[in-house]
Amino acid sequence: MDNYIIDFISQFIKLSENEVQIIKDQNLFRRCVKNELLLQEGQYAKDCFFIIQGCVRAFYIKDGEERNTEFFFENQTIRPVSYLTKQPSQYYLACLEDCLVAIGSEERNKKLVEQIPHLTSLISQMNDNLIVQKTLEFDDFKNHSPEERYLLLLKKKPELLNRIPLYHLATYLGITQISLSRIRSRILEKKD
Amino acid sequence: MDNYIIDFISQFIKLSENEVQIIKDQNLFRRCVKNELLLQEGQYAKDCFFIIQGCVRAFYIKDGEERNTEFFFENQTIRPVSYLTKQPSQYYLACLEDCLVAIGSEERNKKLVEQIPHLTSLISQMNDNLIVQKTLEFDDFKNHSPEERYLLLLKKKPELLNRIPLYHLATYLGITQISLSRIRSRILEKKD
Repeated sequence: MDNYIIDFISQFIKLSENEVQIIKDQNLFRRCVKNELLLQEGQYAKDCFFIIQGCVRAFYIKDGEERNTEFFFENQTIRPVSYLTKQPSQYYLACLEDCLVAIGSEERNKKLVEQIPHLTSLISQMNDNLIVQKTLEFDDFKNHSPEERYLLLLKKKPELLNRIPLYHLATYLGITQISLSRIRSRILEKKD
Repeated sequence: MDNYIIDFISQFIKLSENEVQIIKDQNLFRRCVKNELLLQEGQYAKDCFFIIQGCVRAFYIKDGEERNTEFFFENQTIRPVSYLTKQPSQYYLACLEDCLVAIGSEERNKKLVEQIPHLTSLISQMNDNLIVQKTLEFDDFKNHSPEERYLLLLKKKPELLNRIPLYHLATYLGITQISLSRIRSRILEKKD
């Protein structure tokens, strides 16, 4: 498990043996089971996560219904809004599959960067990537109809469609499950 | 104009006299007129911007129509997706008002951080704020109806409603201008 993190970081920056050891000493892993909650509405998020294996979803509960807003997969970092703002979380984080995650806290991350200062460039690059991803996803959502959104997902993130149940996908696309089924039928008809 | 940037940065980190001078030496200002384009679809963005005065909008052209996705005001940084990805821009940036902006480039920003390393913490904080803002705005958009989105804007960013023409606001909310007028009438009726 240690090696997974080291390999991931080593794709971007060169680590000395000493730095590899520092990271190995820091790592805190957790196995979580399907449906386990990593964060609840109203809680203060103390942890951030790096997904080694599995899939996590973010969802709000509105009018008694779950509304999925984000899915996280392997090699993605989850830094909950509540972790960044120190305010109670407005949303939940739940494992969609059995997961293996590396857990970070503000204090431990700070110490890590003090010990390995050039990690800053990787963190900064990952943050830039996240800003790009969030901007384009939001723009795509605004600029497309639900059917176009589904087709975009099919094109850009086909793996997402294999791993996420349709009822979760529907709220993520901003539609009902019935509408999603209709869209899928229409697309299949066009293919025939 | 120099002092505006210095004052802004000094709210967050303490600058030495030498550092103040480095920033003053670096700054490149530009006055732009209303409707001027700062970036066009297909262009490679070489510059990022910090708005000192004015308002800038980001928009896509889809099916011959402009669709606004973001508005930027004073004290906001604009780092276009194309600037971060080195890919051609998918969207336009245009001044909604006469603007005064400070212009940065990757090379100049890199040099600035080398000379003033503790700027990194401010940049990192600003990026975190941007990630929070983008996440919550996207979540709000997904979790609310167009009328609720308008009411949220009214509550969270009333200044935006005073400065942005309704036809620009409508596409930003993901609706037609006629729908927005109906929503506004309904809200006024409820108030009476």
